[in-house]
Amino acid sequence: STRSVCSAAHPAAPGGAAAIPACGSAPRLACAAEEVFPYPEISNEELAEINQFVGPVEKFFNEEVDSKKIDQDAKIPPETLQGLRDLGLFGMQIPEEYGGLGLSNTLYARLGEVTSLDGSIAVTLAAHQAIGLKGILIAGTEEQKAKYLPRLASGEHIAAFCLTEPGSGSDAASIQTRATLSEDGKHFLLNGSKVWISNGGLASIFTVFARTEVVDKDGQVKDKITAFIVERDFGGVTHGKPEDKLGIRGSNTCEVHFENTKVPIENVIGEVGGGFKVAMNILNSGRFSMGSGSAGMIKKLIELTSEYACTRKQFNKKLSQFGLIQEKFCLMAVKAYVMESMAYLTAGMMDRPGFPDCSVEAAMVKVFSSEGAWACVSEALQILGGLGYMKDYPYERFLRDTRILLIFEGTNEILRLYIALTGIQHAGKILTDKIKAIKKGNMGVALGEFLTRLQDTLGRKVDLGLVGDHGVVHPSLQENAKKLEENVYYFGTTVRGLLSRFGKTIVEEQLVLKRVADVVINLYAMTAAISRASRSISIGLRNHDHEVSVPQDQPFPLRLCSWEQAGCISGELDQTLP
Amino acid sequence: STRSVCSAAHPAAPGGAAAIPACGSAPRLACAAEEVFPYPEISNEELAEINQFVGPVEKFFNEEVDSKKIDQDAKIPPETLQGLRDLGLFGMQIPEEYGGLGLSNTLYARLGEVTSLDGSIAVTLAAHQAIGLKGILIAGTEEQKAKYLPRLASGEHIAAFCLTEPGSGSDAASIQTRATLSEDGKHFLLNGSKVWISNGGLASIFTVFARTEVVDKDGQVKDKITAFIVERDFGGVTHGKPEDKLGIRGSNTCEVHFENTKVPIENVIGEVGGGFKVAMNILNSGRFSMGSGSAGMIKKLIELTSEYACTRKQFNKKLSQFGLIQEKFCLMAVKAYVMESMAYLTAGMMDRPGFPDCSVEAAMVKVFSSEGAWACVSEALQILGGLGYMKDYPYERFLRDTRILLIFEGTNEILRLYIALTGIQHAGKILTDKIKAIKKGNMGVALGEFLTRLQDTLGRKVDLGLVGDHGVVHPSLQENAKKLEENVYYFGTTVRGLLSRFGKTIVEEQLVLKRVADVVINLYAMTAAISRASRSISIGLRNHDHEVSVPQDQPFPLRLCSWEQAGCISGELDQTLP
Repeated sequence: STRSVCSAAHPAAPGGAAAIPACGSAPRLACAAEEVFPYPEISNEELAEINQFVGPVEKFFNEEVDSKKIDQDAKIPPETLQGLRDLGLFGMQIPEEYGGLGLSNTLYARLGEVTSLDGSIAVTLAAHQAIGLKGILIAGTEEQKAKYLPRLASGEHIAAFCLTEPGSGSDAASIQTRATLSEDGKHFLLNGSKVWISNGGLASIFTVFARTEVVDKDGQVKDKITAFIVERDFGGVTHGKPEDKLGIRGSNTCEVHFENTKVPIENVIGEVGGGFKVAMNILNSGRFSMGSGSAGMIKKLIELTSEYACTRKQFNKKLSQFGLIQEKFCLMAVKAYVMESMAYLTAGMMDRPGFPDCSVEAAMVKVFSSEGAWACVSEALQILGGLGYMKDYPYERFLRDTRILLIFEGTNEILRLYIALTGIQHAGKILTDKIKAIKKGNMGVALGEFLTRLQDTLGRKVDLGLVGDHGVVHPSLQENAKKLEENVYYFGTTVRGLLSRFGKTIVEEQLVLKRVADVVINLYAMTAAISRASRSISIGLRNHDHEVSVPQDQPFPLRLCSWEQAGCISGELDQTLP
Repeated sequence: STRSVCSAAHPAAPGGAAAIPACGSAPRLACAAEEVFPYPEISNEELAEINQFVGPVEKFFNEEVDSKKIDQDAKIPPETLQGLRDLGLFGMQIPEEYGGLGLSNTLYARLGEVTSLDGSIAVTLAAHQAIGLKGILIAGTEEQKAKYLPRLASGEHIAAFCLTEPGSGSDAASIQTRATLSEDGKHFLLNGSKVWISNGGLASIFTVFARTEVVDKDGQVKDKITAFIVERDFGGVTHGKPEDKLGIRGSNTCEVHFENTKVPIENVIGEVGGGFKVAMNILNSGRFSMGSGSAGMIKKLIELTSEYACTRKQFNKKLSQFGLIQEKFCLMAVKAYVMESMAYLTAGMMDRPGFPDCSVEAAMVKVFSSEGAWACVSEALQILGGLGYMKDYPYERFLRDTRILLIFEGTNEILRLYIALTGIQHAGKILTDKIKAIKKGNMGVALGEFLTRLQDTLGRKVDLGLVGDHGVVHPSLQENAKKLEENVYYFGTTVRGLLSRFGKTIVEEQLVLKRVADVVINLYAMTAAISRASRSISIGLRNHDHEVSVPQDQPFPLRLCSWEQAGCISGELDQTLP
């Protein structure tokens, strides 16, 4: 009686390419199998709910959104913004009591598949709610929520997130904007400049991070970061002209300056001095949605390019009959399938009551899907040849829009270090202190738990309980599950080796850490895909054979051939391990 | 007393990144070692000659060319075009007797390193002389040359190459434009439409390909392609509006239409019915220059980004101190080094008197350098983070400009098939007819010769004469040369296996052919790099240690670390072989 959000939402794609079928079921890092198997499900009620939203939003994007014009004019027209407001898209995750749609992370991700079809709109909406107002949502007081969320949910007010500064990009803790408490202790005076602020010229509500003086336990005065809700009406808020960008040109990006802006102390988000954690929590909570957004875009590209490939002829054959063209469809289908699987697995975990921090998983989704999207858009463009390079077609715009994904919401470089170090940190702790209780469900912890299991393992295999009589993976995916278990084993021994070789100095070994991150990301990708495909077979989902089929030594047919390719992902292990 | 063109031309690059040092010496496919070892040299006279040109051209590009404006206005201003004329850049390879500079392929490639710094200019110049007037140069009569070349050399006339049609892209033989002989037999009437014509709106001289009726030996009338020199003044020549493109926006691209254009029979290039071969010869002869052009651009990017990386600080460190940033410099340096080595090796072979067809080598240079350039520009942009995405900086323009390289002058898909099939075709012939004399110096033939040698080899090694007492490779590169020999061995056995498995149907196995092509390309890349580095060590070239150094398990320093990486290229073999 439960169904995956994807299974109903994706009919077979037109134009000859098979649809990306449903979600399946998958483990977090294949270690705490119960965390990620079976693949998350949603209730029929939720499914009905999301279908009620998806239809009108798709219709709006297909019929009302002129992406070419938005890109050309570098502006989303007022009537389009109003349409987005009317659909409730400015308040997707704001609870209904504050006038929002109150969507779960899963349903938010599902709508992201549609809104991502226009990069400028996607960024405008994400800057507003995934980061701009998120601080109020996750760390705001009841009063702050009641005061600000209703007009943010309706889109009457637009929000922006002000962290980055000219001298402070990846190194967020080094910001220089300062908030000084007034003598009467009733407000802060805010001074400083922020750059690359999405919605900076449109927003009336800003989440701003600034240094504040904080007296610590020992009575020492220290600079710590604090988060503030700043209204444009507080005064002293100005912005620069919109940046002239490669892509997402319809989204507004500019500098925002604060000059003696008076911010009441009631507008501190969380604790004074606790702003860095607020910033990281905001950023960490939003990244997972890049997976479904990118997948949505790639599925659109499959639709568009398959139409072309099935009609355009060269050498008396349709393009779709050439192996080198089929390979591109294969790449797109596999990447979309895997990033979708990762995104909904992560969203599903985040939706579970009391489920802990999923920031590492979200970062993995972001890295995998941004790089996959970049590669896929370029291949889609290539299918069109010269036409793809022309502004009469949408491919070059998708290419320009997609490039930012590797940079913003944390560069992929920083995120890889974060992924690797978080995992290793936990593993290190557990290796040195095996007595500590293992808190379930955290990737890092799962890794630690896994390493502990390793201690008891003599052979080359590790049994994660994925296969066999009581295994959680469908028997027909047994080989894939075994391969995953094997790779997890190799990974574990490698991490142990690295820790004993480098000790604490491993934090400086960025090239090693990158490889560790790549392995972890691919393991998570394999896990998500196996979990989902396993579910699809188990419930006899339409097209589940496409999710499993392994076309051997033949040119790939124009359909999903995810398992051959998902297998290749694991093949990368051999190279990426030092 | 001879020196490489590169060794003198490249001083250490500014900003902390090491220069790409000189050319070395390298074999064609490591088989006919004498063809590619030692690395081609030029005389001191030639060196002096090229330096005389390079200086003023560099000065012009640094001081007079406003690439941002050219991109923005989608037009090269008249004074810039005039500057290019004054420097003689419209006639680089036209013989001096016709008013050109009469440059060898090597010297042409060297100037291409500079002209590539503006994509729009590079394309305009290349469309003019690498394809537009090339037919006259390589297949024209004395009269045609005397009549057309002088004003083309001066740039008074601009040329364009008209092959592609709406229904005929990669499948060039399927063009529909028709030329009908007049009743008096004195002229052809030309009718048809061409698309994506670079310089189409500027040119006064067109090389046009059209179907013509030809009576063959058996008296049968057949449609065959013929090449024509068409003057705009012949009448009936019109063009569409300039295409709105992702990049190379300052270059003019448009449709060109011919309606009853009267072309005198004296304006046929080569033979009536021999046009397809002319077209292929033109295209094949120009592709090698993409290697030095791309390398020139990447070296510029190294210069720009290293300046940033050595000043920008995050986490209290310069970006240049982070491994993940150093890795990007390593990638750029290695790619530039290898594509440069391939380009000058190929150009050097083409410059030898009576040297045969180098079209496969040129295609390999094109595929390797276009994909390398695309990857490198994206990494350079990434070093800048958000700044890289902004139009205030040149990175996003380089990214847009570079994307076309994967498409034009033959898509990389078509070229991979060409590379693989040419090689296999020759190998096949030789396997079935071992008695045929082996003509030296053709990649395909070299492959065949190699396969023949294999017959006599029982071990896992093949001795190409690269190493040992009489070897042509410097002793310190012995391990690399051995690895190359080994890989050539594996490749040979694999091709034999493929031929016996697929026979003639291998032409349909595009995914297999792609892998074969990738291996051949990488073997050629290894060969070129080893040959060049070998020369550099042998003559004690400045910075030759950078060409050889293998930083082991440390973060890569900000300098060339080509050999570690060139080794990785060979690592790919294991995957790419079926």
